[in-house]
Amino acid sequence: MQNVRIIEIKKSVFENNDKDADLLREELKAKGVFLLNLMSSPGSGKTTTLIQTINRLKEKLKIAVMEADIDSDVDAKKIKESTGIESIQLHTGGMCHLDAEMTRQGLDHLNLDKDLVILENVGNLVCPAEFDTGASKNCMILSVPEGHDKPLKYPLMFSICDLVLINKMDVAPYFDFDLEACKSYIKMRNPKAKILPICAKTGEGIDQFADWIIESVRLWKEGK
Amino acid sequence: MQNVRIIEIKKSVFENNDKDADLLREELKAKGVFLLNLMSSPGSGKTTTLIQTINRLKEKLKIAVMEADIDSDVDAKKIKESTGIESIQLHTGGMCHLDAEMTRQGLDHLNLDKDLVILENVGNLVCPAEFDTGASKNCMILSVPEGHDKPLKYPLMFSICDLVLINKMDVAPYFDFDLEACKSYIKMRNPKAKILPICAKTGEGIDQFADWIIESVRLWKEGK
Repeated sequence: MQNVRIIEIKKSVFENNDKDADLLREELKAKGVFLLNLMSSPGSGKTTTLIQTINRLKEKLKIAVMEADIDSDVDAKKIKESTGIESIQLHTGGMCHLDAEMTRQGLDHLNLDKDLVILENVGNLVCPAEFDTGASKNCMILSVPEGHDKPLKYPLMFSICDLVLINKMDVAPYFDFDLEACKSYIKMRNPKAKILPICAKTGEGIDQFADWIIESVRLWKEGK
Repeated sequence: MQNVRIIEIKKSVFENNDKDADLLREELKAKGVFLLNLMSSPGSGKTTTLIQTINRLKEKLKIAVMEADIDSDVDAKKIKESTGIESIQLHTGGMCHLDAEMTRQGLDHLNLDKDLVILENVGNLVCPAEFDTGASKNCMILSVPEGHDKPLKYPLMFSICDLVLINKMDVAPYFDFDLEACKSYIKMRNPKAKILPICAKTGEGIDQFADWIIESVRLWKEGK
């Protein structure tokens, strides 16, 4: 396996994260870098989804990925090996989320001649939702085996996401997963959320996810 | 559906959680109540596993369950309907874990003429591992769809658990899940951890989990 850079993230000292996140968004806007924050539970398929999506996007957009985990560098290595794009691992040292300053620490280690930087946040449906990373858009993955009732139990995460991907649709026949109920629970939390069933393994819905990213970057560049 | 009591948990003011957790363990010991803390990611099957296990145990032990979630009361209702035992819902109001004082707030609402109280902690592989709840034993569920690499990414959770249940073994053929690799990663984090593959849906391994609980309660009552 190729080696990847591992960045040890330090705890932030900023007290006003919302203000700092707005500042980071302005800095990234000035540099023309769209930051996408991808969140989910552990094991919902963030990395596999990213690999599939980046391989569809990398000829159209200049992309880098920051993989945040408490420990290990398996995800950053997988991304680098499977897509060839710039990929670094952020170690949070036990911390359960990234805030804007921690995200900035990661960005400082990237070559920012990019159109798109994707932050794969720590696997956690709770804490990452509470901290604005400075991202232009928030996206989350819920996977079929986790169950369709998750929007009832983790309201904040679903309420802050622009796009909810429902992954592992290929195994839906083996689980008691009610897609229509799930969609209605998501809409209850967040009427504006876009919902897209996908399967990172078979490729179902990945073209649409890639199109959503391209369109989001385009509108953002046009200031819409 | 039957109604269940919903307890709104307040944030703790205690500064020394470890000390408070030891105190709670002593209090529970004096009352003869064994507290089992069950943790996992969202959607790994905690509630279904509990229902199967409680139905095997309820003639042998007096049991109550505390279901902790940020919102909703679906789990406490499911437990009550499917097992008939005392079950209450704890709402953490956005908080991502329970500490000892928050656990005590829940216990105060139970009739403690029980041998065993099971705390189903908030679905999260990160934060609950950092806070001793005062439990006699810690147990976690990792489910097959989450992937065998999770002990590499969430070291603390695996290191503090006495028992790791590997759930949803029935769907292993549909996922790239390497059970032996998973076991070796868990042992790397925690050589003393007991590991038990189960399937809450088919009942595989549930008898062994029930036996582990009975034996743990017996040894604890004997002061071992």
